[in-house]
Amino acid sequence: MSASDNTELLQALAALVGSDGVLTDAMSLLRYGGERTGGLVHRPSAVALPRTVAQVQRIVQLAVTEGVAIVPVGGATGLSGGAVAQRGELVVALDRLDEIVDFNPVDRTVRCGAGVITAQLQAFAREQGLYYPVDFASSGSSRLGGNIATNAGGTRVIRHGMTRDWVASVKLVSGTGELFDFNRGLVKNNTGYDLRHLVIGAEGTLGIIVEATMRLAPAPRDPAVALLAVADVPAAMSVLSTYRDVLPLTAFELFCAAALEKVLAAGALQRPLAGESPWYVLLEFEQPHGAAGDVPLELFRDCAARGLVSDGVVGRSATQARSLWRLREDISESLAPWTPWKNDIATVPSRLPDLVDDVEALAGELCPDLERVWFGHVGDGNMHLNVLRPAELTAEAFGERCAEFASGLFDILRRHGGSVSAEHGVGLLKKDYLHFTRSAQEVALMRGIKAVFDPHGIMNPGKIFD
Amino acid sequence: MSASDNTELLQALAALVGSDGVLTDAMSLLRYGGERTGGLVHRPSAVALPRTVAQVQRIVQLAVTEGVAIVPVGGATGLSGGAVAQRGELVVALDRLDEIVDFNPVDRTVRCGAGVITAQLQAFAREQGLYYPVDFASSGSSRLGGNIATNAGGTRVIRHGMTRDWVASVKLVSGTGELFDFNRGLVKNNTGYDLRHLVIGAEGTLGIIVEATMRLAPAPRDPAVALLAVADVPAAMSVLSTYRDVLPLTAFELFCAAALEKVLAAGALQRPLAGESPWYVLLEFEQPHGAAGDVPLELFRDCAARGLVSDGVVGRSATQARSLWRLREDISESLAPWTPWKNDIATVPSRLPDLVDDVEALAGELCPDLERVWFGHVGDGNMHLNVLRPAELTAEAFGERCAEFASGLFDILRRHGGSVSAEHGVGLLKKDYLHFTRSAQEVALMRGIKAVFDPHGIMNPGKIFD
Repeated sequence: MSASDNTELLQALAALVGSDGVLTDAMSLLRYGGERTGGLVHRPSAVALPRTVAQVQRIVQLAVTEGVAIVPVGGATGLSGGAVAQRGELVVALDRLDEIVDFNPVDRTVRCGAGVITAQLQAFAREQGLYYPVDFASSGSSRLGGNIATNAGGTRVIRHGMTRDWVASVKLVSGTGELFDFNRGLVKNNTGYDLRHLVIGAEGTLGIIVEATMRLAPAPRDPAVALLAVADVPAAMSVLSTYRDVLPLTAFELFCAAALEKVLAAGALQRPLAGESPWYVLLEFEQPHGAAGDVPLELFRDCAARGLVSDGVVGRSATQARSLWRLREDISESLAPWTPWKNDIATVPSRLPDLVDDVEALAGELCPDLERVWFGHVGDGNMHLNVLRPAELTAEAFGERCAEFASGLFDILRRHGGSVSAEHGVGLLKKDYLHFTRSAQEVALMRGIKAVFDPHGIMNPGKIFD
Repeated sequence: MSASDNTELLQALAALVGSDGVLTDAMSLLRYGGERTGGLVHRPSAVALPRTVAQVQRIVQLAVTEGVAIVPVGGATGLSGGAVAQRGELVVALDRLDEIVDFNPVDRTVRCGAGVITAQLQAFAREQGLYYPVDFASSGSSRLGGNIATNAGGTRVIRHGMTRDWVASVKLVSGTGELFDFNRGLVKNNTGYDLRHLVIGAEGTLGIIVEATMRLAPAPRDPAVALLAVADVPAAMSVLSTYRDVLPLTAFELFCAAALEKVLAAGALQRPLAGESPWYVLLEFEQPHGAAGDVPLELFRDCAARGLVSDGVVGRSATQARSLWRLREDISESLAPWTPWKNDIATVPSRLPDLVDDVEALAGELCPDLERVWFGHVGDGNMHLNVLRPAELTAEAFGERCAEFASGLFDILRRHGGSVSAEHGVGLLKKDYLHFTRSAQEVALMRGIKAVFDPHGIMNPGKIFD
């Protein structure tokens, strides 16, 4: 959108959504055109804040007429630049579509505007005696439309799946301004292509998600949390196999000693175990009833006897459990001062030990001086590898070192049949690496599909693929 | 394919798959060009039986060159004509791609050819101490590729979901003969559009499914089965709510008195309860451990005290449990002599009682003389309504009566936000009714997507939409 068009477009937008619904001040442009993603230029031309689905449709129709590109923005908590406006796009922020309505206790569904904050939905579910199980560090500010657009994962995937698994229906305004209601909340509906699943994870490139009907789960029973010290990734995988056969695991997270040290250095938490260990497992499960209540202890003893676990602690109160969880959840934040190069990689769980080994061997050759912090959802085959920037390296020099590491890393990932983005999406930051996971023919199919939903190419252009 | 082209094409096919892999005799054309679907003309020109994925690709490439349409066929157990060749198409039958390989106990996945029979996969899973939970009446002859192409449901959806939920990855030969491996077995892979989900349920219109990696579940614990007599659909829904809050239900099926009488008339089973009831619920759950073992009886007493249930019986042995299940599973077969007009309809579970009421009221006006048999997966909002043909009506006259009923029925369904095909797919038989569930704009998107995967329009043309 060029500067000269701007005034007319802004007036037209103000006519659609009211003048308080169009923002052009520098602070707003920064706030809505951004994301937490570091190192990306933010350059939206304006921010529109529609209050209704019909307003979203009219904004898109205006954008088609004016040839303006749109970046849909939710809570701007993404990590791959999927919601970053870099080329003067119009940001359409869904904040004001934040109503939770039509709760249905029989179907256990609830209709939510795209602007509903994840924690707001979680709290609503709790009030109904139910549970919205998708949870992650930024639940307090991420918005549901963004969660769906990026198929957000988090810490309960091992038991409850990704956001995808909780979407009963999704309403989308496509690139032509048409409104679609995909699946309309049905459990079973085999009437042609399931376009709902196509929209989930499409990062706004097919249209703007304006509303969704979400399923809620029964409230989980007595969750118990334990932290175990393990020697290596294979041991962690053996512990996983041992526990999951007997207990309904709701989380199984792994992190390395460096991750724990960084969290402890931040000062808010105490060291959970007397000794030190190269790796730690944080696991959560539904406490079994009655006589079966001894099972967790028996499992721990079994793992200890087999040399898989050297020490462990159980959260005996809700407060202790919360503290153990924070040892895992605070990792990402505690690394922020090092402006890390973040990777969100996955393979099938059985290949994860080899993947970590191979990546560590490569790092030992290429960058033994760069500290690497591993943590993640090992039960899903997904690890976050953060490479920390040493104080003595400039951002630019660090970027060069990382780029050198990246090509080897993604080669290893390809060899292990892995994904270059397990849960963060592709956005702008992983676009250059997409070919390690998706073939050129697959990308051609995606382009073709985008053209069907968005024939004018105005929906979040340049994200996922060019 | 015209008669004159035939010889040359058959020779080319024989060169690709061997002469024993090309069938043109009348029996084979009937067997593979058919399906159990009644009332449809079967007219394939030939049947190809490839042994490898590469052979499937070459067949498709040949079909592109020769302008021949393909109908992919699995076990031919569909109920909507999705695998019926009516216009001289080449049938590509996947029978010979029936290997089960690469079982991975850590990932609990297994790679299967599209020709693997559902019961073969179920048996394989049991041998590994695991469980493939998708199950339905035709599991003994349906093939996995067809299950995926139609997103098969069945009796355990309430707990375990549809076929869609067990597909870790799917290999597809598209309409250009290219081979795709969508998702490659990963648990988490947010790298662009999830094309796996697009292929699932697409009824062969996007390409031929040649292989899939399926997830397996832990073996279920001590299943218990009970049959309850209930007065009406609302009572059944209240029973559902009462049980599911406390017990992990693995099935919750409902059928009407007429369904029971037809099964009993077939002679193999005994009346399960002394008295008669307008409706029956068959439910299955994992038997709780220890003291919690009293819970099912308490639930029954609670439902009886609230007047929801008038009588009930529990399967006290595996044999009894099997007999109770057969009361439900034998319904469809026991109706076959009446060549019923079959409907597979759904709405959200909470609206099902009103839907059934409204349909019965309409039937009372339009066709009180036509016997209606209701049965199905009420926990998913899905009922099969079979209308029986009276002996005195010709097939043609019956068809006219049903057509009259159909438009009213589907209008009611639309009013309740329902689906004209919950689990059977659209194929040929539900194509005229697709617009009751999917908008014209949605169908336009589907057409556009088909053109991306199948630019020559050779993949199962005329199925789902024209």
